[in-house]
Amino acid sequence: MIKVGIVGGTGYTGVELLRLLVRHPHAEVDIVTSRAEAGRAVAELFPNLRGHCELRFSEPELERLTACDAVFFATPHGVAQDMVPKLVGSGTRVIDLSADFRLKDIAAWQKWYRQPHACPELAALAVYGLPEVNREHIRTAELVACPGCYPTSVLLGFLPLLENDLVDSSHLIANAASGVSGAGRQAKIDLLFAEVGESLHAYSVAGHRHLPEIEQGLRAFQPSAASPASLTFVPHLLPTIRGIHATLYAKLSSPSDNLQAIYDARFANEYFVDVLPQGVCPTIKSVKATNVCRISVMAPQGRDTVVVMSVIDNLTKGASGQGIQNMNIMFGFDERSGLQNPAILP
Amino acid sequence: MIKVGIVGGTGYTGVELLRLLVRHPHAEVDIVTSRAEAGRAVAELFPNLRGHCELRFSEPELERLTACDAVFFATPHGVAQDMVPKLVGSGTRVIDLSADFRLKDIAAWQKWYRQPHACPELAALAVYGLPEVNREHIRTAELVACPGCYPTSVLLGFLPLLENDLVDSSHLIANAASGVSGAGRQAKIDLLFAEVGESLHAYSVAGHRHLPEIEQGLRAFQPSAASPASLTFVPHLLPTIRGIHATLYAKLSSPSDNLQAIYDARFANEYFVDVLPQGVCPTIKSVKATNVCRISVMAPQGRDTVVVMSVIDNLTKGASGQGIQNMNIMFGFDERSGLQNPAILP
Amino acid sequence: MIKVGIVGGTGYTGVELLRLLVRHPHAEVDIVTSRAEAGRAVAELFPNLRGHCELRFSEPELERLTACDAVFFATPHGVAQDMVPKLVGSGTRVIDLSADFRLKDIAAWQKWYRQPHACPELAALAVYGLPEVNREHIRTAELVACPGCYPTSVLLGFLPLLENDLVDSSHLIANAASGVSGAGRQAKIDLLFAEVGESLHAYSVAGHRHLPEIEQGLRAFQPSAASPASLTFVPHLLPTIRGIHATLYAKLSSPSDNLQAIYDARFANEYFVDVLPQGVCPTIKSVKATNVCRISVMAPQGRDTVVVMSVIDNLTKGASGQGIQNMNIMFGFDERSGLQNPAILP
Amino acid sequence: MIKVGIVGGTGYTGVELLRLLVRHPHAEVDIVTSRAEAGRAVAELFPNLRGHCELRFSEPELERLTACDAVFFATPHGVAQDMVPKLVGSGTRVIDLSADFRLKDIAAWQKWYRQPHACPELAALAVYGLPEVNREHIRTAELVACPGCYPTSVLLGFLPLLENDLVDSSHLIANAASGVSGAGRQAKIDLLFAEVGESLHAYSVAGHRHLPEIEQGLRAFQPSAASPASLTFVPHLLPTIRGIHATLYAKLSSPSDNLQAIYDARFANEYFVDVLPQGVCPTIKSVKATNVCRISVMAPQGRDTVVVMSVIDNLTKGASGQGIQNMNIMFGFDERSGLQNPAILP
Repeated sequence: MIKVGIVGGTGYTGVELLRLLVRHPHAEVDIVTSRAEAGRAVAELFPNLRGHCELRFSEPELERLTACDAVFFATPHGVAQDMVPKLVGSGTRVIDLSADFRLKDIAAWQKWYRQPHACPELAALAVYGLPEVNREHIRTAELVACPGCYPTSVLLGFLPLLENDLVDSSHLIANAASGVSGAGRQAKIDLLFAEVGESLHAYSVAGHRHLPEIEQGLRAFQPSAASPASLTFVPHLLPTIRGIHATLYAKLSSPSDNLQAIYDARFANEYFVDVLPQGVCPTIKSVKATNVCRISVMAPQGRDTVVVMSVIDNLTKGASGQGIQNMNIMFGFDERSGLQNPAILP
Repeated sequence: MIKVGIVGGTGYTGVELLRLLVRHPHAEVDIVTSRAEAGRAVAELFPNLRGHCELRFSEPELERLTACDAVFFATPHGVAQDMVPKLVGSGTRVIDLSADFRLKDIAAWQKWYRQPHACPELAALAVYGLPEVNREHIRTAELVACPGCYPTSVLLGFLPLLENDLVDSSHLIANAASGVSGAGRQAKIDLLFAEVGESLHAYSVAGHRHLPEIEQGLRAFQPSAASPASLTFVPHLLPTIRGIHATLYAKLSSPSDNLQAIYDARFANEYFVDVLPQGVCPTIKSVKATNVCRISVMAPQGRDTVVVMSVIDNLTKGASGQGIQNMNIMFGFDERSGLQNPAILP
Repeated sequence: MIKVGIVGGTGYTGVELLRLLVRHPHAEVDIVTSRAEAGRAVAELFPNLRGHCELRFSEPELERLTACDAVFFATPHGVAQDMVPKLVGSGTRVIDLSADFRLKDIAAWQKWYRQPHACPELAALAVYGLPEVNREHIRTAELVACPGCYPTSVLLGFLPLLENDLVDSSHLIANAASGVSGAGRQAKIDLLFAEVGESLHAYSVAGHRHLPEIEQGLRAFQPSAASPASLTFVPHLLPTIRGIHATLYAKLSSPSDNLQAIYDARFANEYFVDVLPQGVCPTIKSVKATNVCRISVMAPQGRDTVVVMSVIDNLTKGASGQGIQNMNIMFGFDERSGLQNPAILP
Repeated sequence: MIKVGIVGGTGYTGVELLRLLVRHPHAEVDIVTSRAEAGRAVAELFPNLRGHCELRFSEPELERLTACDAVFFATPHGVAQDMVPKLVGSGTRVIDLSADFRLKDIAAWQKWYRQPHACPELAALAVYGLPEVNREHIRTAELVACPGCYPTSVLLGFLPLLENDLVDSSHLIANAASGVSGAGRQAKIDLLFAEVGESLHAYSVAGHRHLPEIEQGLRAFQPSAASPASLTFVPHLLPTIRGIHATLYAKLSSPSDNLQAIYDARFANEYFVDVLPQGVCPTIKSVKATNVCRISVMAPQGRDTVVVMSVIDNLTKGASGQGIQNMNIMFGFDERSGLQNPAILP
């Protein structure tokens, strides 16, 4: 049983970590921090945890955090940068769900997040926590930067195409839609039920912070000779609570009869990636509250544009679930521990 | 590990049973029947079960069912009546989620369900599967009739008031609202997203089939001297997938300062009933996909009308989860087995 | 063509006023005020008004407002009290959608709204703007206090029962549910899509500000000999954008065969109240974006509890539409002007 | 005042026609047909029309239809083909909302709709009812084939790019999402609230019937020298009642600084197409229940992929509203008649 801390437990990724960890066979949450809610019972803020969690929110005391085997950061970007340097030295291993350590290009990070980066040297050390690609590095990592929700769905969807250099990588398109929990537990008019319900719209079309992260990831998949991936990424706000659906488009370099076989083979041993049979489209509902990514691939009308559909739960595989998957790998647990419940349906 | 069969596995209570049973520590599903889908992979119809369930739907063959330790009926009313007599004799224990064996008054059953009852003698034997009331009888029951979803929420809500004869039982009111999964997985125009979304309406106000079931249950709680409970029951269709919220009203026989204490005490040892602190109202979301009933009680403005709010997930505590809770009791397992995951939130 | 001003145009009742007034045959909006958005194009904030409204939000300048024939207040409570005294003297007629002038009992107002009332003398003069009851007084009113959304639905529903003294008025129950727009366009976590969707909960059960308003209204209906109406009022937050459904319960003083006839007769000449045929339940959807209140009445199982169902659109008949209905009456227009479009369906 | 008939009035496009026509200043509905509901009051099936429509559904009697000035077909494909030939000869002008006369290539029609076409000669005569392109032909048309909902949103979005030959037309992409009313008022499990809510999925990716219609339309826009448009079209089912959002992608033939100006100019005189300012994304909510198409165009990150967003209400501009717009043009009414109400918001 390892001892786990959560920094920033009042958001949706925080409560999702708690939902999963209170039933985890090998981990126990020892501390959940929140400056704003310090002293308040966690289960008072999140009534689904009544009977499951006796903790109260506490101040982020370094001593208690360094006494943990693993600490999750479920904080807005900028927070982990300040605290992680103190933890990493102490032997505590860090799993950061925020964007702080995802980009290797610090100048790019500073441009997209509009602030100086507090510890570029740790960003260099951090392992990008996409297990399906980086599993071996994750095992020994001291600091794991968990992928963003959109990046997880887009990267897994494009992975076999780019690894095998099958498409024109200079004109990739990712049309993605996310449920509103992706924007966090924030009091904003744009996220009200009355605004989001019965609607859909694109946002951040000119440039979303996940764009450089996705392009960095895509390029890491490519064989060295390929031209560097360039992506048009259009996110949309979906009137659902959870879930991401990414529809990916690329031009095939040459006609291909075996896209299905390539996808099947690539993910055959990945417990959390499920390639659907030819012709079956994935639904957000089928992955709700799970750590699974479901994927379909096809080339409509036998033409040379390939379409990939990829769905995840943004809070689970897109954040907290993947964080726990990373923890399982880092500590040598069965990778599936605590993450095996089927999706709620309907 | 007991062997379990499910008759009628293509509805929402069927897939909810499967969702819970594929992760149950002491039970294994051996057969799932459906005449219409016989031969089809269960996980093809319900993609959330991909990777969790290798079964195919089969015809309801008696031999395979009697080889099970327990058989669930997740069928429309009228079906279990025909098959249960053959099973009960065989030693297989039956947990019926349908309405077939809930009413002791066969004439009432025949009036409300508009068909003859096929085996009144089994109805007499059947134990009404509300563990918080009938736990001891359930332990040894051969046939458990699981309560309907509305009855579960209403009965648990009124229980302490009636047991203690605190209210005018001749004018009880239950204003209840259910998510649409309560109507089952049926192709009906009234249940379309375009009809249900952004709306609410009452239905079956003149008389809903759960009315005699609830009144039977309420009267069973009452001390013998009390006048028999009479209920006005108004169900509403709610634009949610899951969940029931029952708001109950009754006139207090005498002013009471300790309603909260009475409720706290009554359910203190009930793992699946959670009485909230004074002034906190339960939300459907807090019980989603769980077997928990959350309850609040208060007397607004210090007047003599008591208001009780009771929420459940109609498919879990209101059907399949309660069925499994009954199974756990019948077979001597920890009553909580397979039912301990916290609610999904948000 | 009268000239109309709107004070506080950035909320949902403000945009609903604009939606209706830009197409009104006899009124023209001259000024829409908002301190926070002064200078901004109205149609930039509310894109549904692009092509319909060229106005910009302005400061609430008294001179421009007193130049209007009618001024609507679509402000939080407390605002109208400060400005109305300056307007009423000027000949401008005021239609206040806020709670400022609804209660005749100033002490009660001060208790429920927790602040001193700035002009009790105007509260005494104000006409409660429920046309189905006060039409004649509204015609000549200088200041109309529009009913709240819950009060509108509850009062119209109970009206025939109380006018005719048919029920035990000491134990009335109103179980009501409102779409989230009823809480206004406010950045609050409780109103987020992720919180409200797939849920339902009661709130303010101990005491909601609409309770004294409803009781005042109910008592005004009663014949002098009746015992003063006392109500248990439980509001619920519904996962819809618009709409209120009120389910009302009362004990009949004597058995009644002609409830339907009584309701039919009472509202026969009311264009905006539609009594449904016996056995048909009203749906929120059927009144969406209209000024209509649909009502059903029945006594289930022939017992002595009468159930009334009443639906409105909280932003239209529950606020802005009723405000315009009042304006039409005050200025001698056809009462239906600008309010005749059928509901959007589905 | 012209006399109008509606064939097939029980679906969602039927009730939308009625919603708009009962308030139309120059048209009066004389007959609404439905074999299944013949004799039933229209307002009984669609309660939003209570007080607005006294008609009953009738059998589709030819005599009454030919006595109309205009007849709308709001029927499944295949129905209009049988009846239209009898009407067109009679002087009655036909506005067909179904797919029967949209494709000029009869072989293609027969392939995609899997049945023989009953009157190819009328298909040749029919005018494709997209006013922004074919206004002059519509004026005198005897038979107008109204565009499908997806085609309307996609064609208007691509129009300026193709007319001006600005993009690689051989690799166009349309990622579109539609609310469930687009699938009609049909009792199908896939359209249930419990299935559609909290989910999203693509469908008909291998080939949707609107693909040939859109490609036919796109090619009609192109200057003769351009290579014929080829489209990858991926529709998705959106958990909303109404609305289509199309996100369109194309590779610019050469860098362009004035996409915004080109779109502004193209639609400057189109009342029902609203090009948004640079950087503002259209929302489905802003066009709800209106005949407006809102469009944005941009080239993200200054790269050579252009992104166009186009939103409509599928039942209004995507069907019944556009049908009435066509009627207005055909009969010389103001094109906006009956179609000027702003969108419901929120």
